[in-house]
Amino acid sequence: MIEYRNLRIALLGAGSVGSQVAALLLEHGDELAQRVGAGLELVGVAVRDPEKHRDSGIPFELFTTDAESLIVGADIVVEVMGGLSPARELITLAMTSGADVVTANKALLATHGPELFELAEQLGAQLYYEASVAAAIPIIRPLRESLAGDRIERIYGIVNGSTNYILDRMDADDLAAEDAQQIALELGYLEADPTLDVEGYDAAQKAAILASLAFHTTVPLEAVHREGITNVTHEQVRSAREAGFVVKLLAVCERLVDPTSGEEGVSVRVHPALVPRTHPLGAVHGGNNAVFLEAAAAGPLMFYGAGAGGIQTASAVLGDVVSAARRHVLGGPGVAESTHANLPVLPIAHVVTRYQVTLRVIDEPGVLAHVAGVFSRHDVSVETVQQSPFSGGTEPGSATATLVIVTHTATEAALTATVAELTASDAVTEVASVLRVEGI
Amino acid sequence: MIEYRNLRIALLGAGSVGSQVAALLLEHGDELAQRVGAGLELVGVAVRDPEKHRDSGIPFELFTTDAESLIVGADIVVEVMGGLSPARELITLAMTSGADVVTANKALLATHGPELFELAEQLGAQLYYEASVAAAIPIIRPLRESLAGDRIERIYGIVNGSTNYILDRMDADDLAAEDAQQIALELGYLEADPTLDVEGYDAAQKAAILASLAFHTTVPLEAVHREGITNVTHEQVRSAREAGFVVKLLAVCERLVDPTSGEEGVSVRVHPALVPRTHPLGAVHGGNNAVFLEAAAAGPLMFYGAGAGGIQTASAVLGDVVSAARRHVLGGPGVAESTHANLPVLPIAHVVTRYQVTLRVIDEPGVLAHVAGVFSRHDVSVETVQQSPFSGGTEPGSATATLVIVTHTATEAALTATVAELTASDAVTEVASVLRVEGI
Repeated sequence: MIEYRNLRIALLGAGSVGSQVAALLLEHGDELAQRVGAGLELVGVAVRDPEKHRDSGIPFELFTTDAESLIVGADIVVEVMGGLSPARELITLAMTSGADVVTANKALLATHGPELFELAEQLGAQLYYEASVAAAIPIIRPLRESLAGDRIERIYGIVNGSTNYILDRMDADDLAAEDAQQIALELGYLEADPTLDVEGYDAAQKAAILASLAFHTTVPLEAVHREGITNVTHEQVRSAREAGFVVKLLAVCERLVDPTSGEEGVSVRVHPALVPRTHPLGAVHGGNNAVFLEAAAAGPLMFYGAGAGGIQTASAVLGDVVSAARRHVLGGPGVAESTHANLPVLPIAHVVTRYQVTLRVIDEPGVLAHVAGVFSRHDVSVETVQQSPFSGGTEPGSATATLVIVTHTATEAALTATVAELTASDAVTEVASVLRVEGI
Repeated sequence: MIEYRNLRIALLGAGSVGSQVAALLLEHGDELAQRVGAGLELVGVAVRDPEKHRDSGIPFELFTTDAESLIVGADIVVEVMGGLSPARELITLAMTSGADVVTANKALLATHGPELFELAEQLGAQLYYEASVAAAIPIIRPLRESLAGDRIERIYGIVNGSTNYILDRMDADDLAAEDAQQIALELGYLEADPTLDVEGYDAAQKAAILASLAFHTTVPLEAVHREGITNVTHEQVRSAREAGFVVKLLAVCERLVDPTSGEEGVSVRVHPALVPRTHPLGAVHGGNNAVFLEAAAAGPLMFYGAGAGGIQTASAVLGDVVSAARRHVLGGPGVAESTHANLPVLPIAHVVTRYQVTLRVIDEPGVLAHVAGVFSRHDVSVETVQQSPFSGGTEPGSATATLVIVTHTATEAALTATVAELTASDAVTEVASVLRVEGI
């Protein structure tokens, strides 16, 4: 038996993820030691109130309220407490004390990532964060290493399990939005305050992390265009289904050419979108996550799995702990974040995509030609039009029809101008729905 | 601009993968240099006959027939020539000369992997092989690093694109096996000698590589149970579809308890299997590959993408080149292969799975009870039975029926004994099909 020096692991937080990390470290310590070539010793767990964790199965003497003392002297600090502060200060302390850091904190990275990565590089410390996006699905390491010789063109991510669960129930069981949301809440897919999920904040944080990594560019959270699912209607989901689509909340990160300067930039956006049912993302059901990406050489790739859950997230944290531990045993400064490309982040107006526009129009000769003319005036080319009599709430005497129009690719700016003119038109009684169409 | 020391890359082979590796290195050298922190200089390409590569776009002066001289003095040797010899000798030379090696050679690794990994460990060299399984899909690195803190329970891989293409065409277009195979040949999905693909040899090599890595155990190629797709019939595919399944050639790697010793072992097998259409693997169409796995903490994960192709494979090779190059720049001996678990590889007889058995039986009272009795005598529990009149080629006067039986999990040994007794039974005119059912 080889004599190992034990590596000292400090754990910050013992919530649903932290308690699982502790359990895995304690239960599988021997096997992990063999993989690493060193023992992994959990030296303490910093929490606010140890009493609350008496029955957690973690030896009670490991708990401490003194995170600072725990951190100083640790080889690897695992931050799974969440929130911006004191997580930011504690991670900074850990790196300055010579420890490597493993974090699952997407909010912190999306907000203060650049500063933390810069500090890590200055100090020669490592900051691992596989668990911050899509829980157990390996996506950070594949982007950072496996695809390091390739060029990522675009990422479509379903990176929020709660909203995917809601949209999937609306689609599969023909549920109204509020009913699906209520079920998600009861089954624990949603927090009591669902804002972070349903308004797309959580997905936007993950999008910022993915885009920064994929494009070697710092993408600030504020630069991520964000729309949640609160405006997605039962009717939209049903009509999408009839047209062979499914509504998903997508995080889209892509390279884009700035039309004014002609220079390359990137665009990062989170919004509901129509995806063809036959697309691999169309088969991502329930609370699962998936990251679909297109690379210049590799072509399309998809990474699929559970996007949340304490033990799933703990798996990703442990993978990072093993990486950090191997670095301690085998030496070498590991991988630094790279923002060498430093591309501009372009506004949503420059995004080029397809749209599905649903209009209620008065049912008279010439209306279709008029509507088509509006699209054409704004250089938005129409791919398909489907007209049907409108079944809902018409007043007597005012026959209306529904037009479902799918466009070819157009800029967001052109589409917005088109919709504005349609809204003002007497022939159009309502612009009932505008959804981006992705993945065709 | 930072002054870089150029890293010297030697390329062995300039076929469909090698020529793309060279092109990517030559075209994207500057960008790769920024990611690595050092220039990547292609110093030579060893081929048998340089003349054949005059129009390859690779500068002609880079070609050489003297692989040995090229290797000595290189920092990173990329072996994409394929075959066992001289690839094995050249990789050995490369590592003894102090270079790291990147290879896409699955046959070599499945055959001589343990010896090569041992040599690498002795020498402190690195042997990268992401491209050897499933082309551009990152699977080696996720298994080796992302899931290093987890426990892989089972892998289901669709790791051969040619056979997946054939089976997918049989399923989607209701084609006979020979027609689908002919189309695959015409479209370049199959080699002129399709044996390696259709007999499952290629998938078995990849299964050995995946299982060795996932279970920290040396799995020799000879220990992989292998059945190809040559016995899969049009009728089986159609009947699977009607029952909600799809036939896939699966590489199954799993932990298993040896029933005689009670000790843990592993089982690795390649064979056609029924997979539920709703399973994520059921949506892997055409020539694509996917690796679906179940980990104790992470739960189910799937990695999906193109499983073949020169440029796709080159993407994986380049990712490994960047990893190797970073190691040269940043130091550290990287990751060694780990076979510490050293589990026994168990024979197929111990495998426990479900089966679909299709029987033609004489249509008389008592036959169903008799058949059920045979299953029961061998402790094979029946989950569903579907009986229908047999439409095909009965002689007059001998009415037959078709029984499609899906079992609960049973050992291969028990099922084999059951099938033997059914075959010998007067009530059974034919055991028309026996297929394993996976992924329920």
